[in-house]
Amino acid sequence: MPYFDAASSVPLHPVAREALIAALDEGWADPGRLHREGRRARMLLDAARETASQAVGCRPDELVFTPSGTSALHTGIAGALAGRRRTGRRLVVSAVEHSAVLHAAAAHEAAGGIVAQVPVDRTGRVPAAEFRAALGEDTALACLQSANHEVGTEQPVTEVAAACAEAGVPLLVDAAQSLAWGRTGEGWSLLAASAHKWGGPPGVGLLAVRKGVRFAPVAPTDERESGRAAGFENIPAIVAAAASLRAVRAEADASAARLRALVDRVRARVPESVPDVEVVGDPVRRLPNLVTFSCLYVDGEALLHALDRHGFSVSSGSSCTSSTLTPSHVLRAMGVLSEGNVRLSLPPGSADSAEEDVERFLEVLPEAVREVRGRLAAPGGRDGTRAKPEADAEGEPEAAAGGEPEAAAEAESKPETEAEPQHGASGGPSVTVDALGSLCPLPVIELAKVIGDVPVGGVVTVLADDEAARADIPAWCEMRGQEYLGADGVEFRIRRLN
Amino acid sequence: MPYFDAASSVPLHPVAREALIAALDEGWADPGRLHREGRRARMLLDAARETASQAVGCRPDELVFTPSGTSALHTGIAGALAGRRRTGRRLVVSAVEHSAVLHAAAAHEAAGGIVAQVPVDRTGRVPAAEFRAALGEDTALACLQSANHEVGTEQPVTEVAAACAEAGVPLLVDAAQSLAWGRTGEGWSLLAASAHKWGGPPGVGLLAVRKGVRFAPVAPTDERESGRAAGFENIPAIVAAAASLRAVRAEADASAARLRALVDRVRARVPESVPDVEVVGDPVRRLPNLVTFSCLYVDGEALLHALDRHGFSVSSGSSCTSSTLTPSHVLRAMGVLSEGNVRLSLPPGSADSAEEDVERFLEVLPEAVREVRGRLAAPGGRDGTRAKPEADAEGEPEAAAGGEPEAAAEAESKPETEAEPQHGASGGPSVTVDALGSLCPLPVIELAKVIGDVPVGGVVTVLADDEAARADIPAWCEMRGQEYLGADGVEFRIRRLN
Repeated sequence: MPYFDAASSVPLHPVAREALIAALDEGWADPGRLHREGRRARMLLDAARETASQAVGCRPDELVFTPSGTSALHTGIAGALAGRRRTGRRLVVSAVEHSAVLHAAAAHEAAGGIVAQVPVDRTGRVPAAEFRAALGEDTALACLQSANHEVGTEQPVTEVAAACAEAGVPLLVDAAQSLAWGRTGEGWSLLAASAHKWGGPPGVGLLAVRKGVRFAPVAPTDERESGRAAGFENIPAIVAAAASLRAVRAEADASAARLRALVDRVRARVPESVPDVEVVGDPVRRLPNLVTFSCLYVDGEALLHALDRHGFSVSSGSSCTSSTLTPSHVLRAMGVLSEGNVRLSLPPGSADSAEEDVERFLEVLPEAVREVRGRLAAPGGRDGTRAKPEADAEGEPEAAAGGEPEAAAEAESKPETEAEPQHGASGGPSVTVDALGSLCPLPVIELAKVIGDVPVGGVVTVLADDEAARADIPAWCEMRGQEYLGADGVEFRIRRLN
Repeated sequence: MPYFDAASSVPLHPVAREALIAALDEGWADPGRLHREGRRARMLLDAARETASQAVGCRPDELVFTPSGTSALHTGIAGALAGRRRTGRRLVVSAVEHSAVLHAAAAHEAAGGIVAQVPVDRTGRVPAAEFRAALGEDTALACLQSANHEVGTEQPVTEVAAACAEAGVPLLVDAAQSLAWGRTGEGWSLLAASAHKWGGPPGVGLLAVRKGVRFAPVAPTDERESGRAAGFENIPAIVAAAASLRAVRAEADASAARLRALVDRVRARVPESVPDVEVVGDPVRRLPNLVTFSCLYVDGEALLHALDRHGFSVSSGSSCTSSTLTPSHVLRAMGVLSEGNVRLSLPPGSADSAEEDVERFLEVLPEAVREVRGRLAAPGGRDGTRAKPEADAEGEPEAAAGGEPEAAAEAESKPETEAEPQHGASGGPSVTVDALGSLCPLPVIELAKVIGDVPVGGVVTVLADDEAARADIPAWCEMRGQEYLGADGVEFRIRRLN
């Protein structure tokens, strides 16, 4: 059963499994105790720290183990901010950081701190010059991910680190997605990562703080892990994490080459076989194992379930998935479509069957998308005979004739929407669609259905209160070559250009 | 090799081991994902929560898993204090709580909160009436351990909980030492515990918060564990923790009866076979598996090493052990001797050999103590011919003649101390001993050596800046029937009464 969600978590690496089971017998005691069980635990912990620090590229006394990557980020950000409180209270982050960083930033803001978010371009990449410009005199800390977890785009860490060094600002790098590949960039002051992303067990994060970086751990702390990670050390898991980090790093180059070829194939083939798809993320500067695309007129959760029924485990940054009503902040910051979003992330140690699995995925996907579109009576759906207002499945949008907006009311198990062409289907200068209360992707489907009802130069107004509409209506315009005129509250205005 | 440090950590229970290994294969994925691996992980997590909540005696939705017991305490205390900020900022704790609670209390105080410490009696027990009296109108939270981790004394949780309920104050119970025995007391509002104390793996704590208790998680948080424990869930370890909790609870009564008999034997036999020993903790209301005693004139670390060479793993609350220069706050709060402190805590699932092991410990201990005392030229040492100023190994202190204070200067690898009898050894009205710079147990050894140099009614002044002296000089007076006149800075005054 192909598992394509490595960016969330990967199964335990065989080396980690072996190390973990051995360390359960040897490393269960308190390493702070003086008896032989304690000393043995301490030795295992020290050895794991040595191994992990080599992989990270730091001194062992610069590295502590935390209970998770999230905890490493929270601790690192809070400690660095507190350590430089006298310099200022400004925290600079990219707009596409992991939610753990953004949560820490929000907490800093709530406590009276200042947070500056550096925007990204349409590929999800932070322009280094913009990051540099955001570094004010009062900046206590800057945070940048090594690569984005949702779209795979690698960030210009080394360049940004140089800018930070020049400004005298420490840079914390969230290396969660990159440490396994050994591509974290150079020049960071703090680095955080998470073991279950590289084949280690859950329950282990790591935080490296370079000597000389001001760091004041936020209380309460204790005597463990240099006062930077309170609570009994999880030594068996730490031992396993270090062992697997070493193992995946040894395999990284070969694995990256193999997976990069598979990802390239997906990037090329998906837009060929599925209409109205946007492959997102930087096409070159990216993680070797991750590819993300969004499908117009598709409910992300429904597509996930359809793929799951075919045996494929993927994830999605669409809203209406994973019990969230807001679409991925990453896709939003990039200004790309969030509906029908699918992320494939191939496990680094993928079996030889990975190629076959990817091929089968490429075969299954078009039909899965058609099926989901059909259920929503969306353009390009399997049941498209009933409702293809804008285009045929393979057709050009320009060729589309006006459709039947009411067809959406027939969508199964979805809130009803109502299109209200103010000037009829004959093509008056303006049409309003009421999609209030409708969730992603219905507002965009409604828009697509009525755009043909206005002449070129005419305006469609969509009333939509779904969070996703804010990202997806502009993204649709960008993809379709229509003009997005802006939004006023729940009122989105679009001018037909073609 | 007998391991008698269960209160620090115990080896993995066989049931936990089996569950952990199975869950490594089934529970590694992100339970927040919708694919089959995610759903499987979610099911394991839900089942573990169900099991653990039954053992705790709460609803599953009242219980979250945290990365450690320390984290559960920190989160529970901070969240309950924040949730009741409008009521007041007073936190009431006992003086003998685990350091994790005291660290959280210190952080609260540093942030402008008020902390009231309720003292304990000489057995380490909090008088319920005193706890009740400490509950002011502005009290946001009260914390009490179910049983003390260093001396085994059980606290009057149910009584204190009733007083708290009457005062409208939530009570957080640190049940780390008691949950395995099913003896946590009734009526708590919040409860925290740690899996590696009951045979679960490290990396798992639990925090239960009763419905209706005001609780405001302190940011940053995320969507995991009801927003109360951020970071990727450690599901394999959680599954193992829940399985072992159920298993140890099933065995608890039989195990408690067996271990209680062994502990009773230690409590009775140690004072018979080792002179100048104080067995501490409540003799009746105590954990079934834990016994603690302190040996006068003994360096705790040296004794630990001596026992370790004989194959016994124990722990100590003395200073000079575990890289700490301050003696246990528990022993200090109790007003008992901290030097030469030894804690035996027998693992719940002890093998049938436990009885044999305890017998052998009782045989080895007297000689180990003599050896350590001898190395410091202390009273009761094996090399006592060279320096036994106060008493023979088995003798009465009253019978002791004046000794040679200078002998301490011969102690191996210890800072030198100097006794300065101001009126000579002939027995003037007052003697001053300069033990500045000397560490535990040297100041008390010096005191014992010169007490015979003053006549009954005379006063000895000990100059000592070692933290342990503050507890141990009064404790020595109590044990010896001498009068402790008090301290002024580093100057301790003792009147000879016998």
